[in-house]
Amino acid sequence: MSSSTPDASLLDTTNLAGATAAVLTVSDSCSRGEKVDLSGPAVAEALGRRNFQVVVRSVVADERAAIQEKLIELCRSARLVVTTGGTGIAPRDVTPEATSAVCDRLVAGIAEQMRFQGMRKTLFAALSRAVCGVRGTSLILNLPGNPAGAVESLEAVMDLLPHALELVAGKTAHE
Amino acid sequence: MSSSTPDASLLDTTNLAGATAAVLTVSDSCSRGEKVDLSGPAVAEALGRRNFQVVVRSVVADERAAIQEKLIELCRSARLVVTTGGTGIAPRDVTPEATSAVCDRLVAGIAEQMRFQGMRKTLFAALSRAVCGVRGTSLILNLPGNPAGAVESLEAVMDLLPHALELVAGKTAHE
Amino acid sequence: MSSSTPDASLLDTTNLAGATAAVLTVSDSCSRGEKVDLSGPAVAEALGRRNFQVVVRSVVADERAAIQEKLIELCRSARLVVTTGGTGIAPRDVTPEATSAVCDRLVAGIAEQMRFQGMRKTLFAALSRAVCGVRGTSLILNLPGNPAGAVESLEAVMDLLPHALELVAGKTAHE
Repeated sequence: MSSSTPDASLLDTTNLAGATAAVLTVSDSCSRGEKVDLSGPAVAEALGRRNFQVVVRSVVADERAAIQEKLIELCRSARLVVTTGGTGIAPRDVTPEATSAVCDRLVAGIAEQMRFQGMRKTLFAALSRAVCGVRGTSLILNLPGNPAGAVESLEAVMDLLPHALELVAGKTAHE
Repeated sequence: MSSSTPDASLLDTTNLAGATAAVLTVSDSCSRGEKVDLSGPAVAEALGRRNFQVVVRSVVADERAAIQEKLIELCRSARLVVTTGGTGIAPRDVTPEATSAVCDRLVAGIAEQMRFQGMRKTLFAALSRAVCGVRGTSLILNLPGNPAGAVESLEAVMDLLPHALELVAGKTAHE
Repeated sequence: MSSSTPDASLLDTTNLAGATAAVLTVSDSCSRGEKVDLSGPAVAEALGRRNFQVVVRSVVADERAAIQEKLIELCRSARLVVTTGGTGIAPRDVTPEATSAVCDRLVAGIAEQMRFQGMRKTLFAALSRAVCGVRGTSLILNLPGNPAGAVESLEAVMDLLPHALELVAGKTAHE
């Protein structure tokens, strides 16, 4: 890493306070309108509390090709793209695969941290296959599908996101 | 993940108490009969204590192709396939590669949890390259080769396995 | 893993005390002479304190092909090859990709342990994409770019390295 501690200028709020974010709910039942999407709004609210500007929310079925297409589209309009749902080990959980496919590189430590913090509450957090990766100058972050778990996972890494977005945009004097 | 907390019906013992398990000892010396396999029986006993029905035990040399063939075969007769041995960093440790090759997807959090718990006892747990993955409706779990380490690694994630097997079988209302 | 606890003979200092090490600083500015390399010397000194014999130090730009070439070369003259720099998530951070490309296998637990220990000091340790891998009978270990972070990451796994080098060299009775 270029530096282990961000300096003051990197933490300047000029680009962070208003950083654009998109929220993508991945769910068969929500996409068919059979179920009300509670996770997407909950995640959007949590991002708003931290001064992210949520510019778009969307819902997609648990289909890998459709998720990839949506992720590519959302990365064009937002610096942070957060997904909720499809991160487990059931047959139709394919969000991590779709995310990995459209990312230039993965950031294993962010996924580890979400699981590690999650396991303080429930051992089942170990079953999340959520990943976090970089696509161009955007960051894609997977969260689990249930509202409480999604917000808790997001909070576990929220403090990292502004600096991560700065680094991804190349705003660092590379050593 | 479809839900962070399994509901009561998912934890019903109908399919869990008698879930089938297979144990595969991966060891050159055991496969040649030069050494008595202590790990396989120890792992089988630990599974039995938790009501898994161990339907087959087998021994194979540290050869990637042979291990893969055995794993494919064992997944046909057991929902949980546990290996012991070949997870280290020595040249002939190839169990993780063989496992990854036959799995549809890996579950990183289970491997992390085994290492994390293992490191409370010995720093050398960090050298385990054990993986856990899904093949069809079966779960394959790598454990280290020595009997105590194998049982401890298994115990570290044992509470996860019944729910994990339910999810892999698709018994979940996907959100 | 062949055994969870190394026996006395494996920890004999015959091969360890004098184990050869190489240090590679990955940095655009250092390679152009615009900046003094502080991390390389700091890492070399830390290795020397633990009786590694640092046989070569080198500097390379943040270019994937150039890093790979250097790593291949250094593995010919040293059992342990330690890099510093290029492990973050900025566009020119490519050390993990270069390392993965020249390794036969990765050792996820060592990277996890560096991040886990690093996060006790700073949450930003989660952004390190450092990997550790085996190439032939050599071990390649990525460290972050700033001197303090590099030495702390190294110290977090230092106690593992002698035994890891023994295993990589095949000095183990494979079970």
